[in-house]
Amino acid sequence: MNSAFSRRPSAIGSDFDAYLAGRRALVEEFLDACVPAEEAAPETISRAVRYSLFAGGKRLRPILVLAAAEAVSGVVEDALPAAAAFEMIHTYSLIHDDLPAMDDDSLRRGKPTSHIVFGDAIAILAGDALQTHGFRVLAEGESPVSAARRLRAITLLADAAGASGMVGGQVADLEAEGRPVSAVSSNTLEFIHRHKTGALIQAASEVGAVVGGGSDDQVAHLARYGESIGLAFQIIDDILDVTGSAETLGKSPGKDEKAGKTTYPQVHGISKAKERASELVTNALEELAPFGDRAEPLSRLAQRILERNS
Amino acid sequence: MNSAFSRRPSAIGSDFDAYLAGRRALVEEFLDACVPAEEAAPETISRAVRYSLFAGGKRLRPILVLAAAEAVSGVVEDALPAAAAFEMIHTYSLIHDDLPAMDDDSLRRGKPTSHIVFGDAIAILAGDALQTHGFRVLAEGESPVSAARRLRAITLLADAAGASGMVGGQVADLEAEGRPVSAVSSNTLEFIHRHKTGALIQAASEVGAVVGGGSDDQVAHLARYGESIGLAFQIIDDILDVTGSAETLGKSPGKDEKAGKTTYPQVHGISKAKERASELVTNALEELAPFGDRAEPLSRLAQRILERNS
Repeated sequence: MNSAFSRRPSAIGSDFDAYLAGRRALVEEFLDACVPAEEAAPETISRAVRYSLFAGGKRLRPILVLAAAEAVSGVVEDALPAAAAFEMIHTYSLIHDDLPAMDDDSLRRGKPTSHIVFGDAIAILAGDALQTHGFRVLAEGESPVSAARRLRAITLLADAAGASGMVGGQVADLEAEGRPVSAVSSNTLEFIHRHKTGALIQAASEVGAVVGGGSDDQVAHLARYGESIGLAFQIIDDILDVTGSAETLGKSPGKDEKAGKTTYPQVHGISKAKERASELVTNALEELAPFGDRAEPLSRLAQRILERNS
Repeated sequence: MNSAFSRRPSAIGSDFDAYLAGRRALVEEFLDACVPAEEAAPETISRAVRYSLFAGGKRLRPILVLAAAEAVSGVVEDALPAAAAFEMIHTYSLIHDDLPAMDDDSLRRGKPTSHIVFGDAIAILAGDALQTHGFRVLAEGESPVSAARRLRAITLLADAAGASGMVGGQVADLEAEGRPVSAVSSNTLEFIHRHKTGALIQAASEVGAVVGGGSDDQVAHLARYGESIGLAFQIIDDILDVTGSAETLGKSPGKDEKAGKTTYPQVHGISKAKERASELVTNALEELAPFGDRAEPLSRLAQRILERNS
């Protein structure tokens, strides 16, 4: 079990923070090159798109795509379009979720949200354009990744983002909001978590394996890895909403409770929630065993999710 | 010039309405099969998606895709996923345009708009899901259309839909709104028309040629055909807003003027506007000359755009 950990430390093992910073820089450079410049017409939409895309995100999903591609011996650079696509789809969903008609948030990562800065209409359109651009970047131009694999990546991304994934989770979340905790079953809660956040994280790992040239078996391992860490990520998010401070979170703690949202700790208690997250990370690490050292970044990422405090 | 018209009438020439009805039925059957059933979880989003997708649209864009595929001797059935994708993207844009934060319309095709029926949050999410689904249907599964052509179709659709196309046009439209007619240049007006409506109509014709297996030269002809009819379509739309009745339009006439929108007839006068639309349709028909009889549906479609009264 967890053999990836017991091996000799690789180069990246000595400084995982430097690895993350390097990957983040790679992703941001690519994103910068593939979205329209601020001065592109009409200027407003380019500014709004860039405002949210470069608002200081941790780039978890694109780093996952790249690390999964690495795990199957793929070329990191060839996976950059897929990595960028996931960050664009994730960012579009944040802009729309923050709208007054949805979660009505005025602060995200310590900065005013898109509709506060640009108004609701432009925020809706910036989200729309980012979604479009996410699919575009996966489809456009030449690539060493075969056309068939790119189509498969687009399909997986769309499944994770659409009504059967992220959007479905957001709908279930809106519908559960304001219902008393006792009325929201643990099944409903898990449905929301698996779809609203989990689906895209799972697909990031899966798509990384696809564009990295992985076998069906490798793709399946990394899909299950992604599924486990996706759910763990959301449980930790719920716990942090209860235990975190505004300073470390960049947003107000207790927000979920105020919004009448049912969370994992409410239904199961903090200690059970922590136990479940830890169990999920263990499951995730098991899926990495066949990949050996190449999966060390994925293994570190899984542990970071458990340890994160913001 | 206009040689497509001088040829012997083909079978479809005798009854173009029957042709359109047949194509519409084909598109609707395909759409019905590829969006989640009403009872799919979460139910609300499936209902909202289907409500707008089956609200009685004329299916101009998907019929264009199929007719362009026919013109290059493609198999109509193989072009259905692309046709469906255009209708989904078009429908998503209508749902979002109608939102209170945007054009604030409560009626579309004589029926209450999505946000009136489902609320703003679900309307935003239904639009989001429809956009995702549009790209999904072009990418998923096996197809006789090569993977390379499908990627090209996705790229063209994304370019037409995103910040450099439809979304860019909507932003320019919002920004011009409420400015006095004298302050909106005819260049700005043409930018709005070409992007907001024109880009997707042009891409429908172009993508039909791509998935139908057309040569680069054929694709270029049908892109120019689509560009001309797209602009003509919007000019006629503007004219109808001035001259049409609520009964034939299914929406209130004079809406553009009330909303402070600058229209083609305002800037150029009705008679000049009609002349320009007619000229554009002539240009469009010229692009069809190399295709002979196979382009008769496209030629009829172009004429219909000129003759339409709703």
